[in-house]
Amino acid sequence: MGEATCGVDLGGTKIQAVVLGPDGIIGQARVPTPRSTADEVIAAIVDAAKASLDQAGLQAGDLSGVGIGSPGTIDRDRGIVSLASNVPGFTEPVELGPRVSKELDGVPVKVDNDVRVAILGEHARGAGRPFTDLLGVFVGTGVGGGLVLGGAVREGRGSAGEIGHTVVKDGGRECGCGRRGCLEAYAGRGSMERTARELHAKGRKTILFDLMKKKGRDRLTSGVIADALEKGDKMAMRLIDEAVWALGISLASAQNLLDVEAIMIGGGLGDRLGAPFIDRVAQAMQPRLFVPSRPPAMLTTKFGDLSGALGAAVLAGS
Amino acid sequence: MGEATCGVDLGGTKIQAVVLGPDGIIGQARVPTPRSTADEVIAAIVDAAKASLDQAGLQAGDLSGVGIGSPGTIDRDRGIVSLASNVPGFTEPVELGPRVSKELDGVPVKVDNDVRVAILGEHARGAGRPFTDLLGVFVGTGVGGGLVLGGAVREGRGSAGEIGHTVVKDGGRECGCGRRGCLEAYAGRGSMERTARELHAKGRKTILFDLMKKKGRDRLTSGVIADALEKGDKMAMRLIDEAVWALGISLASAQNLLDVEAIMIGGGLGDRLGAPFIDRVAQAMQPRLFVPSRPPAMLTTKFGDLSGALGAAVLAGS
Repeated sequence: MGEATCGVDLGGTKIQAVVLGPDGIIGQARVPTPRSTADEVIAAIVDAAKASLDQAGLQAGDLSGVGIGSPGTIDRDRGIVSLASNVPGFTEPVELGPRVSKELDGVPVKVDNDVRVAILGEHARGAGRPFTDLLGVFVGTGVGGGLVLGGAVREGRGSAGEIGHTVVKDGGRECGCGRRGCLEAYAGRGSMERTARELHAKGRKTILFDLMKKKGRDRLTSGVIADALEKGDKMAMRLIDEAVWALGISLASAQNLLDVEAIMIGGGLGDRLGAPFIDRVAQAMQPRLFVPSRPPAMLTTKFGDLSGALGAAVLAGS
Repeated sequence: MGEATCGVDLGGTKIQAVVLGPDGIIGQARVPTPRSTADEVIAAIVDAAKASLDQAGLQAGDLSGVGIGSPGTIDRDRGIVSLASNVPGFTEPVELGPRVSKELDGVPVKVDNDVRVAILGEHARGAGRPFTDLLGVFVGTGVGGGLVLGGAVREGRGSAGEIGHTVVKDGGRECGCGRRGCLEAYAGRGSMERTARELHAKGRKTILFDLMKKKGRDRLTSGVIADALEKGDKMAMRLIDEAVWALGISLASAQNLLDVEAIMIGGGLGDRLGAPFIDRVAQAMQPRLFVPSRPPAMLTTKFGDLSGALGAAVLAGS
């Protein structure tokens, strides 16, 4: 049983846990991310981990380790997270690793960037396996990125991969990070929602908020946006057009700098909109590629919304 | 004598050759880049190499190898250059390595991207030595880039490092590559000259072209631009302001993605304008950095306008 690890993906909307055994996923659980304090977020992480262990018929003491993928800036050595503006209480430093370990019978906990671990998982076990060089972009509440170069996940000095905060329009739309014109300001679901609310308040018509209520949501989830798109809602189409445009600029620039073999687009919105969305991004990149005859392979994730938690479980065993 | 190598830096304005012995540079020569055909460019490369050998008291047969740093897309295995729009005749594929080797008694010739070899040289022997991760940006006729990651120059699939063709303003100023809004369209000397000529033709005042004639030049060299700046010429100031702005956006985005330890700015314009220019670029980057508390070290080159040729000589011996 010492081979089992637990992986937790901490997102702005939900917390996903999986238990990974030698042959694959043997337990999983999901809880919504509390909208209150860091303490409640940590309690929810522990709850999700325990629920996934229950499903696997295991206890914390059976695990060889726990991995957590978190947004924000990570101090990996100490398991501390900060600057995660989409998670309540996580803008200030939080001792995430030690606190979760304490609640799970002292099992070792590794913490790394949420998107970096998702890319690690997709590279180790998923759609990224055939490639040595891979750029992953996860389009969810925010927009994160992760780089595999020469077969290894790039950490830099701890903050590598933040493609969501590359500039696509100087002085442009306000971003959750406080700056302007970042990729995330156009392609992140959180920013799309802010923009939609502003436009709606100004009297622009949309079915987005009716669909949201009908689905019993209090936020414009990826599913709500996808449904509105399918129904031809002009505001949803405009938001996605802008996301595609911003991704095209940002990914073409990254490709010109790095010349990777493949780019993977995942995250809540990326997974929900799938291959047709990724094809549109590829088309937006094409005229901006320095070597247009040799574009990167464009991939969807294999594990979908489990890729982050699965990657965290891979991290725990690494 | 088998330890000596010759390095050639092929630029849009000049061709620089050095001979590198065990203890450093033992010969050097420089010729202007012909404005005519690929054949004449190759003849000029051979002339420069031979002149540097003369100075070192050596002949081609004494060399263990020749390295050439070239702009454009490089097929390293076959020594073929293409898409080098700033060098006459080099937009179409040119068998640069084999042709130069033939003219130099069959000595082995390695060809790689001009900026990648410059970064290789600065990393192996120059200002980049203390760093494992380094982004080099060479601001000359065009804007090239080179990446050292984990101590090795990144090649990608052959085209890594093209930071000059990252997008700083979508749909913006026309670039030499045929696209719009690239970094090079704002920070490259060639593009600055086109912009200055357009503004001048529209009646905007500047001393740039008077200074150019006074110095006996037919182009706005880095020296002409620097002199005009020192004399407070408004057009030169505007061009440099735009270059600083574009470099700030592009390098901040690259830093957010890669989180390197250091960024080096070289090339004709970078070397000529030096530390004050690099300080201004650092200031332009700062508000756009995702981790503003930990900016990269900002470096000038050690070898100045010899860094490309020196790096090519390092390549020849590698």
